[in-house]
Amino acid sequence: MRVVVNAAVSADGKLSTRHREQVAISGAEDFARVDRLRADGDAVVVGVGTVLADDPHLTLDDGDLRADREDRGDPPNPARVVADSRARTPPDARIVDDAARTYLLVADAAPGDRVADLEANPTVEVIRAGEDRVDLPVALDRLEAEGVEQLMVEGGGELIFSLFAEGLVDDLSVFVGPTVIGGREAPTLADGEGFVDPEAFPELRLTDTERIDGGIVLHWTVAEG
Amino acid sequence: MRVVVNAAVSADGKLSTRHREQVAISGAEDFARVDRLRADGDAVVVGVGTVLADDPHLTLDDGDLRADREDRGDPPNPARVVADSRARTPPDARIVDDAARTYLLVADAAPGDRVADLEANPTVEVIRAGEDRVDLPVALDRLEAEGVEQLMVEGGGELIFSLFAEGLVDDLSVFVGPTVIGGREAPTLADGEGFVDPEAFPELRLTDTERIDGGIVLHWTVAEG
Repeated sequence: MRVVVNAAVSADGKLSTRHREQVAISGAEDFARVDRLRADGDAVVVGVGTVLADDPHLTLDDGDLRADREDRGDPPNPARVVADSRARTPPDARIVDDAARTYLLVADAAPGDRVADLEANPTVEVIRAGEDRVDLPVALDRLEAEGVEQLMVEGGGELIFSLFAEGLVDDLSVFVGPTVIGGREAPTLADGEGFVDPEAFPELRLTDTERIDGGIVLHWTVAEG
Repeated sequence: MRVVVNAAVSADGKLSTRHREQVAISGAEDFARVDRLRADGDAVVVGVGTVLADDPHLTLDDGDLRADREDRGDPPNPARVVADSRARTPPDARIVDDAARTYLLVADAAPGDRVADLEANPTVEVIRAGEDRVDLPVALDRLEAEGVEQLMVEGGGELIFSLFAEGLVDDLSVFVGPTVIGGREAPTLADGEGFVDPEAFPELRLTDTERIDGGIVLHWTVAEG
């Protein structure tokens, strides 16, 4: 499986303000770029924090991209995936509507009644992996067995860090926007515990850059660990 | 006065790990670039957090750059400045050795004995501005009166955010390095309280980019507020 992380950050690396409300960092050109990236993949994953904060739909905006997918025998939208150890996705979240299939990655610790509620939705398929927190390597293997060869990651910072910590990321595309948000508590591209030992830092290679929307997209690939 | 912020961050916007130890994000090309930037300025400022964490010297590495400065009638090294509301700079810190003049920006709340100790050092000149915290607009006006026309800011994230919040930054140069550090508690380019209202976000303009040391330097200017 190829795992592609995509995000938009301010010039100081923030995804949002400390209030975690969605803010417009990029513009129309970047939205179109992200739509094309989504269309190229089999599934798009977010962490449950992003579902609770932004209620994203994660479907394609551009009807032509949906038509192209159908022409090649794919569903019109890529599948949606939520990394949701405790099954906190609200049953009426947009991400579990019928616009596409949705995989919920839960841990054994997820309350059974919440899982049952979500599983009753015909859109939802639950994948259990890990005791207290989702075991991401196992969960991604299961997704691959379901046919997900390319997985796009759209945040937030906790999920992105976890994927880097597990050595699961292949590509990182970051739109760096023309503003400063600041805030020691504002969410960043990679949060979590963070690396401490420089030997453990993932090594990136800058493969390409694109100036759009007053900012710049940095395309990095992750060196083999 | 022209205020130029310069920093090196990981691809996820971190200055360092959550342990706040110095880590090598850039390399020889970026160090030389920073040395030239320092040589172009009249003074280099850091926050006291950076003094306590890293004990920086903030002088020029390249003897030719020092000689060039002397040829044009300047001191060999730019002046050093610490934003140090409570006068916490250790009396034996490298930044108050005799390699260059050092201005300490303190608030009225700074303990008198600490200020007196530091002021006894002939390298040190104390500038008092603000009650509880340094009043940066006033302090920078005083520095300008001392002949500082160009001030380079080398961190940390608390000082950089405060300068943005006061509308004092003219240019921002960021080396984005080929690694990921992560960590919701790791210091970022702009920490502090952070902006909340998108109307308050500083507007930047990307003027230039330079690929060095496996990463990229993004040169931004701040639009007039």
